[in-house]
Amino acid sequence: MSKDPLVIFTPSGKRGHFPVGTPILTAARKLGVDLDSACGGRGICSKCQVTPSYGEFSKHGVTVAKDALSEWNTVEDRYNEKRGLISGRRLGCQAKVQGDIVVDVPAESQVHKQVVRKRAEARDIVVNPSTRLYYVEVQEPDMHDPSGDLERLITALRKEWELPELEADLSVLKALQPVLRKGEWKVTCAVHLGDDTFSPRIMQIWPGYYEGSIYGLAVDLGSTTIAAHLCDLGSGEVVASSGIMNPQIRFGEDLMSRVSYGMMNASGADEMTDAVLEGMNALFVQIAAEAEIDRNLILDAVFVCNPVMHHLLLGIDPFELGQAPFALTTSDALALRAVELGLNLHPAARVYVLPCIAGHVGADAAAVALSEAPDKSEDLVLVVDVGTNAEILLGNKEKVLACSSPTGPAFEGAQISSGQRAAPGAIERIVIDPVTKEPHFKVIGCDLWSDEDGFAAETAATGITGICGSGIIEAVAEMRLAGIVDGPGLIGSAEQTGTDRCFPEGRTNSFLIHDGTADGGPRITVTNVDIRQIQMAKAALYSGARLLMDKFGVDKVDRVVLAGAFGAHISPKHAMVLGMIPDAPFENVTSAGNAAGTGARIALLNTDARKDIEETVRNIHKIETAIEPRFQEHFVNASAIPNSAEPFPILNSLVDLPDVNHNQGGGDKSEGRRRRRKRAS
Amino acid sequence: MSKDPLVIFTPSGKRGHFPVGTPILTAARKLGVDLDSACGGRGICSKCQVTPSYGEFSKHGVTVAKDALSEWNTVEDRYNEKRGLISGRRLGCQAKVQGDIVVDVPAESQVHKQVVRKRAEARDIVVNPSTRLYYVEVQEPDMHDPSGDLERLITALRKEWELPELEADLSVLKALQPVLRKGEWKVTCAVHLGDDTFSPRIMQIWPGYYEGSIYGLAVDLGSTTIAAHLCDLGSGEVVASSGIMNPQIRFGEDLMSRVSYGMMNASGADEMTDAVLEGMNALFVQIAAEAEIDRNLILDAVFVCNPVMHHLLLGIDPFELGQAPFALTTSDALALRAVELGLNLHPAARVYVLPCIAGHVGADAAAVALSEAPDKSEDLVLVVDVGTNAEILLGNKEKVLACSSPTGPAFEGAQISSGQRAAPGAIERIVIDPVTKEPHFKVIGCDLWSDEDGFAAETAATGITGICGSGIIEAVAEMRLAGIVDGPGLIGSAEQTGTDRCFPEGRTNSFLIHDGTADGGPRITVTNVDIRQIQMAKAALYSGARLLMDKFGVDKVDRVVLAGAFGAHISPKHAMVLGMIPDAPFENVTSAGNAAGTGARIALLNTDARKDIEETVRNIHKIETAIEPRFQEHFVNASAIPNSAEPFPILNSLVDLPDVNHNQGGGDKSEGRRRRRKRAS
Repeated sequence: MSKDPLVIFTPSGKRGHFPVGTPILTAARKLGVDLDSACGGRGICSKCQVTPSYGEFSKHGVTVAKDALSEWNTVEDRYNEKRGLISGRRLGCQAKVQGDIVVDVPAESQVHKQVVRKRAEARDIVVNPSTRLYYVEVQEPDMHDPSGDLERLITALRKEWELPELEADLSVLKALQPVLRKGEWKVTCAVHLGDDTFSPRIMQIWPGYYEGSIYGLAVDLGSTTIAAHLCDLGSGEVVASSGIMNPQIRFGEDLMSRVSYGMMNASGADEMTDAVLEGMNALFVQIAAEAEIDRNLILDAVFVCNPVMHHLLLGIDPFELGQAPFALTTSDALALRAVELGLNLHPAARVYVLPCIAGHVGADAAAVALSEAPDKSEDLVLVVDVGTNAEILLGNKEKVLACSSPTGPAFEGAQISSGQRAAPGAIERIVIDPVTKEPHFKVIGCDLWSDEDGFAAETAATGITGICGSGIIEAVAEMRLAGIVDGPGLIGSAEQTGTDRCFPEGRTNSFLIHDGTADGGPRITVTNVDIRQIQMAKAALYSGARLLMDKFGVDKVDRVVLAGAFGAHISPKHAMVLGMIPDAPFENVTSAGNAAGTGARIALLNTDARKDIEETVRNIHKIETAIEPRFQEHFVNASAIPNSAEPFPILNSLVDLPDVNHNQGGGDKSEGRRRRRKRAS
Repeated sequence: MSKDPLVIFTPSGKRGHFPVGTPILTAARKLGVDLDSACGGRGICSKCQVTPSYGEFSKHGVTVAKDALSEWNTVEDRYNEKRGLISGRRLGCQAKVQGDIVVDVPAESQVHKQVVRKRAEARDIVVNPSTRLYYVEVQEPDMHDPSGDLERLITALRKEWELPELEADLSVLKALQPVLRKGEWKVTCAVHLGDDTFSPRIMQIWPGYYEGSIYGLAVDLGSTTIAAHLCDLGSGEVVASSGIMNPQIRFGEDLMSRVSYGMMNASGADEMTDAVLEGMNALFVQIAAEAEIDRNLILDAVFVCNPVMHHLLLGIDPFELGQAPFALTTSDALALRAVELGLNLHPAARVYVLPCIAGHVGADAAAVALSEAPDKSEDLVLVVDVGTNAEILLGNKEKVLACSSPTGPAFEGAQISSGQRAAPGAIERIVIDPVTKEPHFKVIGCDLWSDEDGFAAETAATGITGICGSGIIEAVAEMRLAGIVDGPGLIGSAEQTGTDRCFPEGRTNSFLIHDGTADGGPRITVTNVDIRQIQMAKAALYSGARLLMDKFGVDKVDRVVLAGAFGAHISPKHAMVLGMIPDAPFENVTSAGNAAGTGARIALLNTDARKDIEETVRNIHKIETAIEPRFQEHFVNASAIPNSAEPFPILNSLVDLPDVNHNQGGGDKSEGRRRRRKRAS
């Protein structure tokens, strides 16, 4: 039996015997414990911090004496003075084994940190970026054995960090000689570890030990808005988030009008590309300013977008996407240099664009698949990304199907009589008392409901200007639940419904939500045409999902995930009341928030996830709704708004369920309670 | 025994039996015969032309009947009408085996063509470029099985041409969809087959079968001139050659003054980089215009240059190269994109820069090594690239040594009293009659010797303006042979030499070559200071060579190769008279012409040669003359101009040898004869 002390690491449980005097970092490396170090154990980087535990550990079968580690040394003193070491922590490269010891590796000292996500079913983000920092000491030049400074740097990186044969970016070559000499042959390198497209490469170099971070951008390039998350590539944390309107809106609100613009104007596609690049470069300046970092520290960027935006980002005319057979120029993932695209980041920065699934199911849907991982799900999950087009994924570990369904812009508040974009003043939540038929509502920008004290004062500035997408869905669903609308989608008359809020308009009736004319505001109503729009949209969505279920050979799904910024705001209950989504246990209908953005973040932070989603997308079976006769059939059958009898037997049970919105982005958790209070009153 | 007909290919001698009806191209492929085809056997490209032979072939043991191949068909007819087929030729993809047949593959139908070089000892250039053309038919898009146009193109290239998984350049993506549709799903692709830095990639795409060529540039980036050869990447032929003065000359004539300019001016290095890039882009426009091709068809470029030019090409301040330990930023070969450097070629064009050997022995020396291949030589060869610095290689199959020797600018006519650059009007050849001591000479721009009829008339335009580098070397050597100069390098007086052309100047004497003052021209003389300059320069060159011989442990070499544009003009005989180079059999002293430029051409045309020279350079042992005490020793001993007694016993025998200059670039072959006639007269 070994007489060497036993070293046990938590939380991994890895253990081994090591001679007295072995640094904890060395022991960790030998055991394959995930303990970070950027300086190679020189007491500079402090990334190898550990927390030793003392006392008796019956679970591990050891008793740890007070002197189980070498004494606190001058390196630790210096580091503590300079930047402060959390009480109880030691530097793993300095603390040496003296006796049996139990050492905890805190989360932030792990190389492959995890950014834990709140939803249990969502995959955690493993931090395993393609570009990392390495500190290294380089041999000085020698006339007797001439070699380039770069070659000696590469040799040092290979020897100390076991990195592959590297190349250097041209920008690094230009800076190399002065930086090496300024750092007295000690430098920190940002190294891109290589992928299918790019050979491993030194991206940036700093003299001495570089204490800062390097960053990456996860960009969700939507047709309406462009959202970016700036992430620390070391910790995986989001350090800033920012968004702008897509400047292409001036060429057309929706995708098809942009495709048309490209068709009607010789340089139309180029103009749109220039516009979106200009917008993104402005966004990058803005987000770097928010995070107070130099834009040149952004070394990587991941883009997710629909196929039309995908083509316009790359400078490709999306002409072919506007007509059958909807041929993509390229469907595979793309690895590029940011400069190729005209993006102003670090001169050597990389860009990764997720693969597209089909001509109507883009890299954004791939990102949703990466975030929600239907291909790794034990149970059958339906993932719906609701926007102007709905991208729908259905699958489990065995198989994943995908399609796109043309829901149109009604879900975004467009083509609705009182509709508007989600903006301050827009009605976003509605409750209609089933007895009195009186509506109460919330508007964006105010936390109060319309029947609460102070509502008028708090909304004075914005006014009450219209209904946004989530508001119109709730309005229609509540009107149905309150008996104001019948199954085929007709609004009853005042006599039929018993409320004066119903009034005739043309050959049908409309329903008054709010009359602001006394204060110079608009009359906000739901017309029967609005109901028709919502019926069409929801029928399209439902039919797409049903079509996939047919192809999968199932009648029901185990779970439904509503994704997309809009999905984040739809109340699952109202979605089910409307018949937007197929039948599923109510508690299994959740919102994934901005899943495409999350997928972008995963691909940014975890280089393995890129391989993963590329493989997944290759295996996703695409269904083209346009050429599937059954889609049309489902569509015709799905326009009705279900009632308790058919085809949704669980509808009645929903009426008293809380309508908690699982949106991660916050939201008022007390709404469910408040609602019941309202009803009771 | 097989009853199938026997097919024999010449010149390879490969043979095999194939069923009746097998196309010759198919048979060639199965046997691994090097028969080209760009259209995949569709009768479009005509690259698979072969010459069948009929009759009895006792050597091969077959008799070929007249009907051994299928009859001339309509595809061949059409091709012959359109572009003409050389008599006796068939298209290998159309002609089918009917009986035993002998088929010759002409040189131009081979994939790996060879560009044969005139000198027996020089390596031929194998045409095996990194970028090639492929014709392919692509599957049309299908809504039922959506995939990107690019992915279907890549699949076709993989299936038809066994190419690896490709990517596409962004410029290809932009053009892809319209080109595929214009070509009705038949296209020609220029494909870069990949290297250590770049993954295999489609560089350009044309609708249908592209009948044109793609091109590459071999660029010899010298401190004084920039020379470029435009090569057809398919045939290997040089289609245009052009040169310009290096615009950096305004920052300093020689390398050290450019290094100084960078030291003295904050943005000095950047200015010099901008200047050389601007110059090269102008040169590329010029050479494309000469060849009457679109500059966008230039897909590859290879650069050779000395270390200072190497750094300035890349935008790196050459500061460190101006001081010990002469550390290069990088010594390895570089693969880059032309756009990264700011070179205006095809948007996806590649750039390859040969490796440097040491801080004073650059990529130009590596190119000389590639061209002259000392590492593949059975006998011991000394390769001298003579310029402002002399780069010297010594070696054989066992080992190669390299050094650089600071010869200074005297060999280029600088710092010589009547010296000038090689330009019209400069004296480049000199003969001094050993009896009468009368000099005769030739000037650049005139084919006549100065004592021939019409010389005065033909040189009236340029005048006789000075002596260039090769002229001063011949002058000093001829003065020594005629007894005008003694061993230590002193010019005798008129009394001592018996000619009035010797006249006192200061404490020593000068020698009058030509007095043009009567016509308003200069008096062209060789002063004793000039002799000293040449002595210093040749001593430096000789000492470098001797130092390598010491290191190699030899006293003599088997062969001497004089390389460099200047080396091309030095008469080997005069170089030996002067003692510029160590003793070697006279017939084994040859000139390699612009070996660096040839090396660049080899690296451009043969991708394997790049690996080869990278490996060779890694194995070359570098000697730094500055820190070798023996260099100084040799230098002191080498300043004398040898006489018949010592140290060059073969000197006397040289006097009557023809001084044929092995310069490949042409030159007057009758000079040797003419000279003897002069002497006789």
